[in-house]
Amino acid sequence: MKVVINDLYDYYGLRICQDEEKFKFSLDSILLAEFVDLNNRINVIVDFCTGNAPVPMILSTKTNKNIIGFEVQEEIYNLAVSSIKINKLDNQISIIHDNINNSNKYFLSESVDCVTCNPPYFKYNKDSSLINDDKVKAVARHEIEMGLEDIFINAKYILKNKGVLYLVHRCDRLEEIISLFNKYNISVKKIQFIYSDINKDAIMVLIKGVKNGRRGNIKVCPPINITDYKSYKGIFDKKGD
Amino acid sequence: MKVVINDLYDYYGLRICQDEEKFKFSLDSILLAEFVDLNNRINVIVDFCTGNAPVPMILSTKTNKNIIGFEVQEEIYNLAVSSIKINKLDNQISIIHDNINNSNKYFLSESVDCVTCNPPYFKYNKDSSLINDDKVKAVARHEIEMGLEDIFINAKYILKNKGVLYLVHRCDRLEEIISLFNKYNISVKKIQFIYSDINKDAIMVLIKGVKNGRRGNIKVCPPINITDYKSYKGIFDKKGD
Repeated sequence: MKVVINDLYDYYGLRICQDEEKFKFSLDSILLAEFVDLNNRINVIVDFCTGNAPVPMILSTKTNKNIIGFEVQEEIYNLAVSSIKINKLDNQISIIHDNINNSNKYFLSESVDCVTCNPPYFKYNKDSSLINDDKVKAVARHEIEMGLEDIFINAKYILKNKGVLYLVHRCDRLEEIISLFNKYNISVKKIQFIYSDINKDAIMVLIKGVKNGRRGNIKVCPPINITDYKSYKGIFDKKGD
Repeated sequence: MKVVINDLYDYYGLRICQDEEKFKFSLDSILLAEFVDLNNRINVIVDFCTGNAPVPMILSTKTNKNIIGFEVQEEIYNLAVSSIKINKLDNQISIIHDNINNSNKYFLSESVDCVTCNPPYFKYNKDSSLINDDKVKAVARHEIEMGLEDIFINAKYILKNKGVLYLVHRCDRLEEIISLFNKYNISVKKIQFIYSDINKDAIMVLIKGVKNGRRGNIKVCPPINITDYKSYKGIFDKKGD
């Protein structure tokens, strides 16, 4: 463990506890938080797979409503709790140290207005040599503790009717992701693609869906070119790191 | 009827018969044809909803294999046949005057390598005031003679194992489209979004799927900005025209 305190991107005036060896937040979380549409009717926000809580902290700069994060790994949960303390956000943000698959132990059915999630991106294959030897890194990147469909099962349960789910993920799983939105009747409303170079393929996708929403009115927003995020400062994970 | 002969875009050296009052091809068809990946194993190409045959004619500049178009409307079928004649493409391109839902009367199951389709974009609602009074225009734009799912039913039937389906459509129906690719086990492989202004929402989407293909390896290509298509010349339909 090598815990350091970094800026959570220049823009927000927030600090974040990171572990230089095991876990740093990624630009994807900033893009996810910025993708969220907030309004007065959104009273309870839950962030699945919250990591060291970048999404709850950024959202706290835009709303004074309650934000609750789930983090299954103790080492990362501790980073989240420390991050919230040093920013004096304890009154607004709580972190639950548990698997998202236990979300129904903490939330009633249809009690939450908004769920956000920056999940592990890679399918888990026990035999794969690509799995990181470090357990903390492996769980953060691979679907070991939960899978993609678990996000939908749990979001569907805790979200109110017309509640909103926001997800960031890799483009290569887009068919699976959109089919799951469809399967759980969380209608896709807004999509945005993220490019590291506007002349190459997209690297990531942001998706918003509304539980029991009307189908067939999707907005595909302008492409995001992350080279525009200039004050990157090297504190983010490198792609594939 | 006011039939004229226009250039099929500057680039190809082809001419196309249009009806100034009832039917002109759109830029979408050019983008669809340019989106198609051709190779030596693609021997038979079928273009559903072929209109005045812009997609078959553009593909004929890139392959010498057989291309067959389906067009259900007699007036437009006649434009397609005339277009193919004036370009002396009769030996390579045939047009069938029938509904795509009869494709199994012309093609054996698993006999085609590639299906392309620029379909009517709008759902049909008999009571809608938006339906064009002109029957030819209405059928070209609304799902009166066929619906979105019919493309998948018929493509699935005539395509060989690992055969390819290419579609251009409006972004607002993306969830429905990708869910249909998923339902018919035509795995999405490549997606590209079309913008009329790169700082605004996308207007159209191009999608490639492979029948019985492996899932989870989607490429989202660089955005297309149609303002780059400079020699537009006003011969295309205006959006929503």
